Amino acid sequence: MIKPLFWENDRLFIVDQTLLPVEYKRIEIKNHLDMAGAIKRLVIRGAPAIGIAAAAGLIVGLKPFINSTSGLFFEKLNEISILLNGTRPTAVNLSWALNRMKTVAESMKNQPVPDIWDRLYREALAIHREDIEMCQAIGRHGQSIIPEKANILTHCNTGGLATGGLGTALGVIITAQQLGKDIHVYVDETRPLLQGARLTAWELSEEKVPHTLICDNMAAYIMSTRKIDAVIVGADRIAANGDAANKIGTYGLAVLANYHNVPFYMAAPSSTIDPNIQSGQQIIIEERNGNEVRNVFGTQIAPFTSPAISPAFDVTTNELICGIITEKGVFRKPYYFS
Amino acid sequence: MIKPLFWENDRLFIVDQTLLPVEYKRIEIKNHLDMAGAIKRLVIRGAPAIGIAAAAGLIVGLKPFINSTSGLFFEKLNEISILLNGTRPTAVNLSWALNRMKTVAESMKNQPVPDIWDRLYREALAIHREDIEMCQAIGRHGQSIIPEKANILTHCNTGGLATGGLGTALGVIITAQQLGKDIHVYVDETRPLLQGARLTAWELSEEKVPHTLICDNMAAYIMSTRKIDAVIVGADRIAANGDAANKIGTYGLAVLANYHNVPFYMAAPSSTIDPNIQSGQQIIIEERNGNEVRNVFGTQIAPFTSPAISPAFDVTTNELICGIITEKGVFRKPYYFS
Repeated sequence: MIKPLFWENDRLFIVDQTLLPVEYKRIEIKNHLDMAGAIKRLVIRGAPAIGIAAAAGLIVGLKPFINSTSGLFFEKLNEISILLNGTRPTAVNLSWALNRMKTVAESMKNQPVPDIWDRLYREALAIHREDIEMCQAIGRHGQSIIPEKANILTHCNTGGLATGGLGTALGVIITAQQLGKDIHVYVDETRPLLQGARLTAWELSEEKVPHTLICDNMAAYIMSTRKIDAVIVGADRIAANGDAANKIGTYGLAVLANYHNVPFYMAAPSSTIDPNIQSGQQIIIEERNGNEVRNVFGTQIAPFTSPAISPAFDVTTNELICGIITEKGVFRKPYYFS
Repeated sequence: MIKPLFWENDRLFIVDQTLLPVEYKRIEIKNHLDMAGAIKRLVIRGAPAIGIAAAAGLIVGLKPFINSTSGLFFEKLNEISILLNGTRPTAVNLSWALNRMKTVAESMKNQPVPDIWDRLYREALAIHREDIEMCQAIGRHGQSIIPEKANILTHCNTGGLATGGLGTALGVIITAQQLGKDIHVYVDETRPLLQGARLTAWELSEEKVPHTLICDNMAAYIMSTRKIDAVIVGADRIAANGDAANKIGTYGLAVLANYHNVPFYMAAPSSTIDPNIQSGQQIIIEERNGNEVRNVFGTQIAPFTSPAISPAFDVTTNELICGIITEKGVFRKPYYFS
C-alpha cells in the first residue's frame, strides 16, 4: 500500500510528493520545523494525511523536551501546535489532530513528562491507524453508489498519498476495482500543482486501475461525449449545511456534473465535517502564491509580470452534492450536520 | 501591433509561438513543407491566422514552379493545398483560404503562369489585409456588449498572434481599453498548450491591459466570488444552428457562465460560420497526442504509462451562446445561418 508517512526504527519519514511521479524520494523529518515546512510546501498534502503528519510532527518536535519540566513541555506543546496549525488554513484535520493530542496531554497533566510523551506517541500512531480503518470503511460504504461497470471522474489526489490508508474518493474507486467491478477512471490533472497528473495517475498505475488522464478543462467534453457514472472527489472541510471546501476546480466540476446529470459525490472522514461552521461562506480559502500558476515544475509558462492568483480551494454548494461518503455511511442532501 | 506572420523583402517569416513568452523568435518559411509543419506543431495557430498562413504557404510553395508549365503549376497547387488543408482538421479558415486561392487561380487558367502566381501573391496579401479590417470591425461591433467598466473572462488566445490584426475576442477587449473603458481581464491559462498563459497574458502585457492569469479550473470560483460582466472567446468553426467549436475548455466555460448568469459571447470572422454543417455533432474534433497532456513544455508531469487524451476542441451548444460577434455585427440566438 502507498504510504505518505511512516516510522522506521523510531525515525519519521515522509515521501516527497512534489517530486512524484518522476522520482520517489523519502525524507527524514527530524523536528517540527521540518514537518511545518513539508506541510507548507505540499511535500505532504491531503486533508487526512496532514492531520496524521501534524500529530507526528508534534511528537518529533517534543522529543528534545522529554526530560524537561512539565511547564516547559506544555509550553513547547502549545508553541509547536500553533506553528503546525498555521501551515495550511483550510483543512479541518490539522486542528482536529492537534486538539486531540493536546486533550490527551492535558488529561495527564500531573504525570511524568516522559509518560506524557510516550502516550502522545501512541496517540499519533492511533490517529494514523484509525485513518487506515476509516479509509476502509469509506471504501466499503462507497460501493452503494458505484455500479458493476463504471466510468468515474475524479479530481486532485485523494488516495494513499493523501491519507493514512487506501484513500477517500480514490479509496472508494480502488476498493470497487478490488471487489471485481469494471472501473475506468478519468483523472483531472488538477492545476496548478497537478496532484491528479502526478499523484493520482501514479497511484492508479501502481494499483493497476485503468485510467485516462485529462486536463481539467476537458471534463465537460468528457461528460458530454461519454457516459460518466459518477464524479467522486474528496473534501477538506464540510460545513453544517453540507457546503464543502475542496481542491480548486471541484466547484466547477460539480456545476458541470449537475448540468450533465452526472451524480456528484464527496468522500471524506466525518472529522472533515465542521458543525461549528454554518455554511461555506464562513470557510477561509487559502490563497497561495501566483508563481504556482506562472510556473509548472519550475518551468515558466507566462510572463513574470502578469499577475496571477492561486486559490487552493473552492466551495461547492450543498445542492450540487448528491451524497457525502464517510466512514459512518453515505449522507444524502439536504444536510444538517451537528 | 503584434503580428504572427509577415513578409520582409519577399521573404516570409512567422513568430514561433511555441517559445513565447520566454523567447520571441522569428522563423523563415521557405516552402510549403515548412509552413505545413509550423501549422501542425502550432508554431502558428489561431483560426484566422492559419487561414492567412495557408495562403502564404501556398505562395512560397508555388514559387519554384513560377516558370513551369501551366499543367505542372496547377498540379502543384492542388498537391500543396491538400497538404496544407490536412494540417489541422477543425478550423474552417484553412480550407476557406485555400479554396479562395484556388478559385482565383482557376479564373486565370489560360494566362501565363508568372501572372497567376503574382495574382495569387496579391490574393494572399489581400486575405491578410482583409483580416486586419475584419478584426477592426469585430472590435467595433463588440463594444455594444462591453460596459464602461468591465471584468471579462477569456480563454485561449484570440489576439494579434491568432489573427492578422488585433484579434477576435481579444480584439474586442483591447479595442474597449483603447476606447477608454475600464477593463480587467481574467485569462484562462488554457491547458494543455497554455495559449492563454503564454500568448494572451503576453499580448495583454504588451498592450498594457490589466489582467489576472488563472488556471482553467478557477473560472467557476472567479464567477462565484467576483462580478464577471462577460465571457468572450473565439470560435474555430460555427455550424448553421450556432453550435460552435472552439479550444477545449470553451464548452465547460459556457456551462459555468450560464449557471452564474454571466453572458457568454463568441467573436469570430463570419468566414468561421460553415452553413454546410447543420449542427455541432457534425464537426470533426481534432484529437492530438496525449503527450501534450503528460508533459508541459517538455517537463514530465505524469507517468509515461498513464493513457491521456488531448481533444483540441469542444463544441459549445447554441443555447449557451448569448451572441456571436462578427465583422457584420452581433448575431443573437436563436441562430439560423445559411
